[in-house]
Amino acid sequence: MKVAIIFGSKSDLEIMKGAAEALKSFGIEYKAYILSAHRVPEKLVETIKEIEAEGGECIIAGAGLSAHLPGVIAAHTILPVIGVPVKAALGGLDSLLSIVQMPKAIPVATVGINNSFNAGMLAVEILSIKYSAIREKLIRYRIDMKEKFINENNEGVEL
Amino acid sequence: MKVAIIFGSKSDLEIMKGAAEALKSFGIEYKAYILSAHRVPEKLVETIKEIEAEGGECIIAGAGLSAHLPGVIAAHTILPVIGVPVKAALGGLDSLLSIVQMPKAIPVATVGINNSFNAGMLAVEILSIKYSAIREKLIRYRIDMKEKFINENNEGVEL
Amino acid sequence: MKVAIIFGSKSDLEIMKGAAEALKSFGIEYKAYILSAHRVPEKLVETIKEIEAEGGECIIAGAGLSAHLPGVIAAHTILPVIGVPVKAALGGLDSLLSIVQMPKAIPVATVGINNSFNAGMLAVEILSIKYSAIREKLIRYRIDMKEKFINENNEGVEL
Amino acid sequence: MKVAIIFGSKSDLEIMKGAAEALKSFGIEYKAYILSAHRVPEKLVETIKEIEAEGGECIIAGAGLSAHLPGVIAAHTILPVIGVPVKAALGGLDSLLSIVQMPKAIPVATVGINNSFNAGMLAVEILSIKYSAIREKLIRYRIDMKEKFINENNEGVEL
Amino acid sequence: MKVAIIFGSKSDLEIMKGAAEALKSFGIEYKAYILSAHRVPEKLVETIKEIEAEGGECIIAGAGLSAHLPGVIAAHTILPVIGVPVKAALGGLDSLLSIVQMPKAIPVATVGINNSFNAGMLAVEILSIKYSAIREKLIRYRIDMKEKFINENNEGVEL
Amino acid sequence: MKVAIIFGSKSDLEIMKGAAEALKSFGIEYKAYILSAHRVPEKLVETIKEIEAEGGECIIAGAGLSAHLPGVIAAHTILPVIGVPVKAALGGLDSLLSIVQMPKAIPVATVGINNSFNAGMLAVEILSIKYSAIREKLIRYRIDMKEKFINENNEGVEL
Amino acid sequence: MKVAIIFGSKSDLEIMKGAAEALKSFGIEYKAYILSAHRVPEKLVETIKEIEAEGGECIIAGAGLSAHLPGVIAAHTILPVIGVPVKAALGGLDSLLSIVQMPKAIPVATVGINNSFNAGMLAVEILSIKYSAIREKLIRYRIDMKEKFINENNEGVEL
Amino acid sequence: MKVAIIFGSKSDLEIMKGAAEALKSFGIEYKAYILSAHRVPEKLVETIKEIEAEGGECIIAGAGLSAHLPGVIAAHTILPVIGVPVKAALGGLDSLLSIVQMPKAIPVATVGINNSFNAGMLAVEILSIKYSAIREKLIRYRIDMKEKFINENNEGVEL
Repeated sequence: MKVAIIFGSKSDLEIMKGAAEALKSFGIEYKAYILSAHRVPEKLVETIKEIEAEGGECIIAGAGLSAHLPGVIAAHTILPVIGVPVKAALGGLDSLLSIVQMPKAIPVATVGINNSFNAGMLAVEILSIKYSAIREKLIRYRIDMKEKFINENNEGVEL
Repeated sequence: MKVAIIFGSKSDLEIMKGAAEALKSFGIEYKAYILSAHRVPEKLVETIKEIEAEGGECIIAGAGLSAHLPGVIAAHTILPVIGVPVKAALGGLDSLLSIVQMPKAIPVATVGINNSFNAGMLAVEILSIKYSAIREKLIRYRIDMKEKFINENNEGVEL
Repeated sequence: MKVAIIFGSKSDLEIMKGAAEALKSFGIEYKAYILSAHRVPEKLVETIKEIEAEGGECIIAGAGLSAHLPGVIAAHTILPVIGVPVKAALGGLDSLLSIVQMPKAIPVATVGINNSFNAGMLAVEILSIKYSAIREKLIRYRIDMKEKFINENNEGVEL
Repeated sequence: MKVAIIFGSKSDLEIMKGAAEALKSFGIEYKAYILSAHRVPEKLVETIKEIEAEGGECIIAGAGLSAHLPGVIAAHTILPVIGVPVKAALGGLDSLLSIVQMPKAIPVATVGINNSFNAGMLAVEILSIKYSAIREKLIRYRIDMKEKFINENNEGVEL
Repeated sequence: MKVAIIFGSKSDLEIMKGAAEALKSFGIEYKAYILSAHRVPEKLVETIKEIEAEGGECIIAGAGLSAHLPGVIAAHTILPVIGVPVKAALGGLDSLLSIVQMPKAIPVATVGINNSFNAGMLAVEILSIKYSAIREKLIRYRIDMKEKFINENNEGVEL
Repeated sequence: MKVAIIFGSKSDLEIMKGAAEALKSFGIEYKAYILSAHRVPEKLVETIKEIEAEGGECIIAGAGLSAHLPGVIAAHTILPVIGVPVKAALGGLDSLLSIVQMPKAIPVATVGINNSFNAGMLAVEILSIKYSAIREKLIRYRIDMKEKFINENNEGVEL
Repeated sequence: MKVAIIFGSKSDLEIMKGAAEALKSFGIEYKAYILSAHRVPEKLVETIKEIEAEGGECIIAGAGLSAHLPGVIAAHTILPVIGVPVKAALGGLDSLLSIVQMPKAIPVATVGINNSFNAGMLAVEILSIKYSAIREKLIRYRIDMKEKFINENNEGVEL
Repeated sequence: MKVAIIFGSKSDLEIMKGAAEALKSFGIEYKAYILSAHRVPEKLVETIKEIEAEGGECIIAGAGLSAHLPGVIAAHTILPVIGVPVKAALGGLDSLLSIVQMPKAIPVATVGINNSFNAGMLAVEILSIKYSAIREKLIRYRIDMKEKFINENNEGVEL
């Protein structure tokens, strides 16, 4: 396992699928956990230690509302933590601010509201520094994305 | 000690004095701690246990930006936790939302931005349910406040 | 009766049920009132006096838009007042700010937007300081919540 | 006295002077009061009755933060209430929303943030419906304002 | 005709009905116009003059988005102008700010987002200063509203 | 004269200088006016007609708060109107929304808050379509800007 | 071709139709492109050069979320760029701010959220400076719009 | 060089120093560039290629207002891009939203407003996956930080 995906309740599952989808495209092993910083704080800390022990290299955490989960994880690990603000109220602005405005020295790498796919892609980019196989795939992925985009839209568009 | 006041850094000290001021007016014993949910999470959990062991009955926590401190404390205690959003960016809106929008079953009693005096007063009100001496003082305090207000402004005001 | 739940119109009833649900889980007696700070201000003041006379120890008040209800109640009692911002416009931001930004010395313990369950839980926490039976139940409740959470999510989750 | 100006503390005095300034230009009698909806709620209600008894025809109320004052006054009178959101936090957005988003049937005529002069002018407009002398002055005032504006800026401007 | 109700397009008609409803309850004659500050500015100015000539004493104007209508009307009359922010984007915050933040000396009496009923009630309050029959009805209306509220909610409420 | 610059009061003069500065760099003749949509609406309409008669081809309008000026101008001309939101309250968000959210068919070309220089540059770009001399200068300007930028920052920077 | 319409994905197509609709009413030739500043940045730059080579005189660009497209286009051309903030999250506020707050000297002429019709109309206004035939049509268009508006709403309206 | 730090103008230099400070504590080589996505887009693309060629493994980009820089960089590289929203208007909310709300597949790892130190720390965490020496230092850094925090605040605090 290289990446752990953690979120606070089953209600966030659909939103968080994007992270897994991105990792799967690159054949990166991941493991998903439902864990809450407020309901099971000790279990969360334990699990972070397990993730580290199992060789996890990056943690993606999604949360809504007060959205402390990514920051609390970051407090317990030196692995890069990627935060996904999940929209539950106020258009997701509360989640975004709760995740991104971290204090000095304990960053959370925040992506867009509900944009768990980008969290997965950011994990891919981060791992690509170390793993040249992922780097190769990522270069390929971006070229394919461009080609696909151009092919699909080549004809021009009728407005 | 009945009330613990916790905040994340010396830079919040001036803002948090209001809480102590309110408690002092009522002769309520309190103890203040600088502790961070992100820098010293284990120490924070230990201290919460100490506060409970020393008979603490209410915890006031002030934090800015991501402002996870009050919520993280609430995850580790059943004591009522009062959160003070400290203004550090975006007028304090980030702190307010990070503190108030807690998930189901783990509330934080949130007061106004930078309004630590009200956090102290809320602690007084909470304790007044149990301690009749505090209740008497609180009734007196409100009467005095009214009288003082009326005396000061009785003459009318020149605009 | 230990807790009074007050809100301004039948349209808030569904949202406010969460407060009752939380109190019921702890066997705490409560009474609910529909009362408006703007339509029946005198009746509201009378009822606050009745609540105090009947031994009420905490008041939960839900309101939307200008949301003056919790603050007006707080002006007429020394009981802790818990405010629930009800979402009616602007995602509930107007209600939240109207409730939380109280002036010096008259706090309202504010919970998250539409989160009346947390208002109920906060009342439970507040009462648990005085009543050891409630404290015992609350400790049990949190343990059960953790166990339930862990059991439900133990298997891991498929993304 | 035709207009009452009410605000919650001496700290709002400078901001509220604009209301008096506008009324003075029209020779409209007014009386100013410092009164708080939260600190001296009974005194506030009494004073509203006095204002009505003394022939007050319009009430201007300025408040910051939760800013319940104008709405609470409106609950106790059928006189038109003009609300001035005073900027104290969040740029005055909290005050504005607390004042303007009143429930059905109890309006507050809200003017711009810190714009007490406009509250005074709105009172003048309202009174001008009944008092033809004020109407005449108001017509004159607007003509003078135009002339003054044109004279001052007639020369053009150098950028 | 005592009150004119102006709004910018048929799409605002449903929202603006509340103003008429309030005026009808008091038997106050009103006339409604669809007029735009941007599409037919000259016609708007003409109509304002007609409204004044026909004895109009108050103008209610509803608008969404940039919402210049109420302010432009206020620039062309000394009658009190009541502005209704119609929600069309950003939850109505754009309309509210466009209407309420008027420059010095040209106020618009702003009510809550989509709350045209309150605009009607504010017109009633304003007219009640001059017309004692309206005042009597308004006093009666508020008493009835209170009684109705108390009767409807007297039984208490089951949560 | 090719461009008119209009703003509502001398207090906006400093902010609006940027528009003139941009136009001067291109030798484009402009004329500045202080005119208010609310204080001198007839004079404003007259002036727009004069601007058109004198061959004006673009109008830049700056305004704060409710900021109706650009939109009102757009209602009276078919010339492109460029709006500059001037910051006076709420960080300029009120001005921005009042200017940009125009109704169908009457656009205002809005630039950034207080960014009158960009309003001037936009006028330059618009005029460059018609006047090849301006186009040449604009191409040159952008090349010079690039060169200057690169020269200034070529050495790298010490952090 | 005089106007290019560019947007980032097929999901924006419906919103962007308004721009084409406006241009069609004036018989102005346009061409639409789906191009992304982030997915196909080189293709975007190429296309801008093609648009210039084919005589394009104005570019309309619509984008949501981070909404860099209009600004990136503006960096590569001296043609006026009109930006349409497409609503995808936070009510479109993110798109609006990303588009309008451009740095010094590289303006984007921003219109209202989702208001691509106004982008088209702004292009018409801009072109009307150069092409007298378009100017004539635009004068006619505004007169017709007024007449149509007055005819449709002449009867008055029943509330 | 392992990390590139890019920002758009000398005015951002003070804010961006934090990134360098964090990297220096870990002895990580970095290079800083002043480059603008809007003024020198071609130079920016060239430089990104150089950074990649020189072995850069992570890019930190700071920007204010429309803040396209980090996203434009991300469009041209597969290296992880860390975005620092620089506060220049609206409290930095515009920069934050412009940076974080990236489209699918092109993420920017966003940190808090003006918090370039955290951007540096995030780069450290990212590199620590690959470089065990950095990992060791990072583990040490966090331990030291904890010890320092505890030592400094051990005495308790006087309120």
